[in-house]
Amino acid sequence: MSEIKHIGVFTSGGDSPGMNAAIRAVVRTGLYYDIKISGIVRGYDGMISGEIIPMDAKSVANIIQRGGTVLKTARSDEFRTPEGRIKAYEQLKKCNIDALVAIGGDGTFTGADIFTKEHDIPVIGLPGTIDNDLVGTDFTIGYDTAINTVVDAVDKIRDTAESHDRLFIVEVMGRDSGLIALRSGIGAGAESILIPETKTDVQALLCRLGEGRREKASKIIIVAEGDDAGGAFEIAAAVKNKFPGIDTRVSILGHIQRGGPPSCMDRVLASRLGVAAVEALREGHTRQMVGVVNGKIHFTPFKHAIKHISEASPELVKIVEILSR
Amino acid sequence: MSEIKHIGVFTSGGDSPGMNAAIRAVVRTGLYYDIKISGIVRGYDGMISGEIIPMDAKSVANIIQRGGTVLKTARSDEFRTPEGRIKAYEQLKKCNIDALVAIGGDGTFTGADIFTKEHDIPVIGLPGTIDNDLVGTDFTIGYDTAINTVVDAVDKIRDTAESHDRLFIVEVMGRDSGLIALRSGIGAGAESILIPETKTDVQALLCRLGEGRREKASKIIIVAEGDDAGGAFEIAAAVKNKFPGIDTRVSILGHIQRGGPPSCMDRVLASRLGVAAVEALREGHTRQMVGVVNGKIHFTPFKHAIKHISEASPELVKIVEILSR
Amino acid sequence: MSEIKHIGVFTSGGDSPGMNAAIRAVVRTGLYYDIKISGIVRGYDGMISGEIIPMDAKSVANIIQRGGTVLKTARSDEFRTPEGRIKAYEQLKKCNIDALVAIGGDGTFTGADIFTKEHDIPVIGLPGTIDNDLVGTDFTIGYDTAINTVVDAVDKIRDTAESHDRLFIVEVMGRDSGLIALRSGIGAGAESILIPETKTDVQALLCRLGEGRREKASKIIIVAEGDDAGGAFEIAAAVKNKFPGIDTRVSILGHIQRGGPPSCMDRVLASRLGVAAVEALREGHTRQMVGVVNGKIHFTPFKHAIKHISEASPELVKIVEILSR
Amino acid sequence: MSEIKHIGVFTSGGDSPGMNAAIRAVVRTGLYYDIKISGIVRGYDGMISGEIIPMDAKSVANIIQRGGTVLKTARSDEFRTPEGRIKAYEQLKKCNIDALVAIGGDGTFTGADIFTKEHDIPVIGLPGTIDNDLVGTDFTIGYDTAINTVVDAVDKIRDTAESHDRLFIVEVMGRDSGLIALRSGIGAGAESILIPETKTDVQALLCRLGEGRREKASKIIIVAEGDDAGGAFEIAAAVKNKFPGIDTRVSILGHIQRGGPPSCMDRVLASRLGVAAVEALREGHTRQMVGVVNGKIHFTPFKHAIKHISEASPELVKIVEILSR
Repeated sequence: MSEIKHIGVFTSGGDSPGMNAAIRAVVRTGLYYDIKISGIVRGYDGMISGEIIPMDAKSVANIIQRGGTVLKTARSDEFRTPEGRIKAYEQLKKCNIDALVAIGGDGTFTGADIFTKEHDIPVIGLPGTIDNDLVGTDFTIGYDTAINTVVDAVDKIRDTAESHDRLFIVEVMGRDSGLIALRSGIGAGAESILIPETKTDVQALLCRLGEGRREKASKIIIVAEGDDAGGAFEIAAAVKNKFPGIDTRVSILGHIQRGGPPSCMDRVLASRLGVAAVEALREGHTRQMVGVVNGKIHFTPFKHAIKHISEASPELVKIVEILSR
Repeated sequence: MSEIKHIGVFTSGGDSPGMNAAIRAVVRTGLYYDIKISGIVRGYDGMISGEIIPMDAKSVANIIQRGGTVLKTARSDEFRTPEGRIKAYEQLKKCNIDALVAIGGDGTFTGADIFTKEHDIPVIGLPGTIDNDLVGTDFTIGYDTAINTVVDAVDKIRDTAESHDRLFIVEVMGRDSGLIALRSGIGAGAESILIPETKTDVQALLCRLGEGRREKASKIIIVAEGDDAGGAFEIAAAVKNKFPGIDTRVSILGHIQRGGPPSCMDRVLASRLGVAAVEALREGHTRQMVGVVNGKIHFTPFKHAIKHISEASPELVKIVEILSR
Repeated sequence: MSEIKHIGVFTSGGDSPGMNAAIRAVVRTGLYYDIKISGIVRGYDGMISGEIIPMDAKSVANIIQRGGTVLKTARSDEFRTPEGRIKAYEQLKKCNIDALVAIGGDGTFTGADIFTKEHDIPVIGLPGTIDNDLVGTDFTIGYDTAINTVVDAVDKIRDTAESHDRLFIVEVMGRDSGLIALRSGIGAGAESILIPETKTDVQALLCRLGEGRREKASKIIIVAEGDDAGGAFEIAAAVKNKFPGIDTRVSILGHIQRGGPPSCMDRVLASRLGVAAVEALREGHTRQMVGVVNGKIHFTPFKHAIKHISEASPELVKIVEILSR
Repeated sequence: MSEIKHIGVFTSGGDSPGMNAAIRAVVRTGLYYDIKISGIVRGYDGMISGEIIPMDAKSVANIIQRGGTVLKTARSDEFRTPEGRIKAYEQLKKCNIDALVAIGGDGTFTGADIFTKEHDIPVIGLPGTIDNDLVGTDFTIGYDTAINTVVDAVDKIRDTAESHDRLFIVEVMGRDSGLIALRSGIGAGAESILIPETKTDVQALLCRLGEGRREKASKIIIVAEGDDAGGAFEIAAAVKNKFPGIDTRVSILGHIQRGGPPSCMDRVLASRLGVAAVEALREGHTRQMVGVVNGKIHFTPFKHAIKHISEASPELVKIVEILSR
């Protein structure tokens, strides 16, 4: 293993709050260890087209608190082809980049895994996604901010729900995973939380709503967009069909969940992982995602990290059962 | 005119942030002038059914900062009938309520106007609606908070738009009025703002998007839900049809716009109007909405207040033209 | 009057949220009217040293939502001397800058007034200060954000005050003016508001606290830093002396009041004034501050604008009296 | 062990955001398991005076999002005496309360530990403090919210610092512990973080400031109030003494750090611990604090929990060293 002298850092896939904090940490750790850092703009697409810019302390000044990613992100079809990856590698060589830090989710790491098999360049991955669905880290960068955003939005919706004694069905992000729904639903004090990981029993839900009707209180149901019973509109239709008298509204939170200043925890997580990624490259590691498990820095081979978490914490599921009764 | 001894206060129509601050002001002003105050729950519906509760300083402690309305709100079909209004009046008499403060929008004041014509009870109205579309006040209670909520949401969306070079079409509240869209759009730095008050020229919009494409920058378009060109999905369809290459997303902000802690300005406005309403009743006024015009307390007969504002400020429209070029 | 071709814009004095929105509006209005815009860094200091940078749409992209000022600000001793002002003028001529937009407070306008008397360059001022103490505008840029920040902080403090039945004395900005204290105090539901514009009667305050003690409730007192009875610590000492049993705490809000993303109203105000300033220069105006009075754009000669507002609105003062009883 | 039929829940010591979420979880878990729940007002003081109120779902409706504690909190001198504790026990017996959930910090648990030794009543403790300094839980309820509040405040302060190229010395809570300072300082991107756990070398700090002066950039130093070099004013004095030219300001964040709506993580943590506490009492446990260690529910005897954590994470300390260079 030869010494790392020049690291390229990029963000790829959906953006998440804290990506900028991670970029900043990579750049400043590079400065600390006297390693040159360049930013690759727009992920693999920019790698192929050579959109590569040198970065220093000034490039990352005053970005720790900003959502999104200053390096931009994109999905690249060309990188899925061997020819695309050859172009990318040539661009890196042209700039003398001899290692990569990839910030993104499973698509990002899948691409990186193939790339490192074909070309001689070490890559360390950072879990940057609001979905928290990667194996090998307790939390992904952006998840904590996203659930705070959801809870803040539902707090607002509850004001209206309470004032009108309404039922609100709020759809949150999570095509394959209910992890945003589960924690934000507990945090929002939701009456029901519907997630893809558990079978949603619409009849039982309607039964409980029927029982609860006498109280005339407002209710909030949180639905992950990938729930097996369909999204918020499907649930609302079932409710309206059974109980036309319940004043039911739907709110799709949508893209506000991706943005905003990162929470302190996301900034700290991103900072820790950014430092660890550069140190891991210095120590000769590659093809691993760095995460935090049980509070400690932890490395997981890409091929394991990209397996989605497919089970919701039984403890949290039980807590929903107890607290929303 | 006899002396007012017991005022009933209620909220009606859609809830808006600052209604609680208004209720608090009415109650505390009653205490100050030694007038009894009762809260009528769920608007005209609760008036008919007699859901009337005594209120004191304790009832309104720690509510100034809360969104929604502690007195709840509802729309009442029964109150639209003379029989309903007779029942309502009888309930008020039973409680010795001899004056009313009605917090709500045009529907609320229309009801109050008819009620005061049929029954001998003075009513003063407070403009509580996020729409800011009433004649007789520069701002309605809740408008300032709503536009802050929109701007905060668009700030988050812009993080994602910037990171992906996306076009976002964001739909905000305003079925008949573009006043939320106009100010929040300027505040969010939107590239276009589509409102019902001005003819929306979709072709011109597409032209500008076409010109701007070369810059590859992110763009935000704000659409009032009542815009003549249709809502956000219609605009998005037109864009996708003409420019399939533009990465276009839609976000419907929805009910988060109604809730949340009121802004300082909304709390101050609600406090001023609550005090003025009680003082106006003491001085023998009735069938008027109290607002603030040019910074000063101003009274407008209900029949004028409920005429919607149907024109957008030409200065603001021109500012959009200049700044979004 | 010759045609304006190149405007220099700068911020001076204390920073305030919305200054960036104003800078953005000036730059984009320049683009609209085909006027070149340069930014002068660090106010009059940068004018003297020639820190002048060209600005275009890109320079002001994505800054409307950011607090502080991208052009930085400073206080300049050298500009107080005729020699300093000569240097400044020469730098402007060297860059062919033929008009100025000055964003700041009374010190900024005083400097501009003298400068325009000595040198042939038109200047329009924008009121950028959180203090809201300038004649000629209903609100200054930054005031609305500052009072929202105070109210948000006091909402947090009240959580603790309520939990412990404590008295909190909260000091807010306002060396010469109680305008921040007055509106934020009403918005925060403070029990007392102490401002320099009205004589503070500490004995009467203590009396009321004594009466209120039986209720054992929490209390919030807002003090402007320039209050005649001294700051928060002085009031706290008087309370502790008289009522050692009252659990009294002091909180000095300090510099958080200057920062943060501007409110929607501040962004709209800054945008309107930035447009108006450039248009005014085009039309040959000079030595005036542009503000908004009764909702409309309004010009005031510098010499009048810098006279501090020295009276608190009697209506607001009375509202405090009524609502805090 | 006899079956638990009636649990008393109370909060004690300093309030922290999430205490209400914990109370709600205890009450709703009681309902689920058919256990009566009463709230004891004002901690041990209310226990002695018998301020005990029955609680049901309605008592805890709409409180999950509120800072502070609806049960209020106080420090009790009388409970430190055997006589006081006898009175407290008698009040509990009078109400047939046969178990306790104590939400608070080390003082709370010390009191509970003694109480359970003298009197036959099981107690489970919940870590409710912003300080995060208890052994036996990765995070205390309120810590996550507090560091978000700090980071949000410093983001605001940085706007001003940047605009003026100022040095800000920000003092955060933490008399014995730098845990708030450490994470919030990393999250805020502070240039230095001074904590009691590590020896603060003021000379080295001044050296680095001296080197950094040439950059003329703004700087933020975070100081824990219990730092060995003194608080923010002491540091500021040393800086001003050595570098009179550096524009140095102090901000003491103070009590805003305790309040505000709890973060999602704090609400989830409080909910999990509230459920676990009731279940632990049902299963016969006592004299333990329930926390979360490595993501899992974990019980720690009171006598161990109250030993303060006296070491800062070496990894985080190193990260500060690397990133703030």
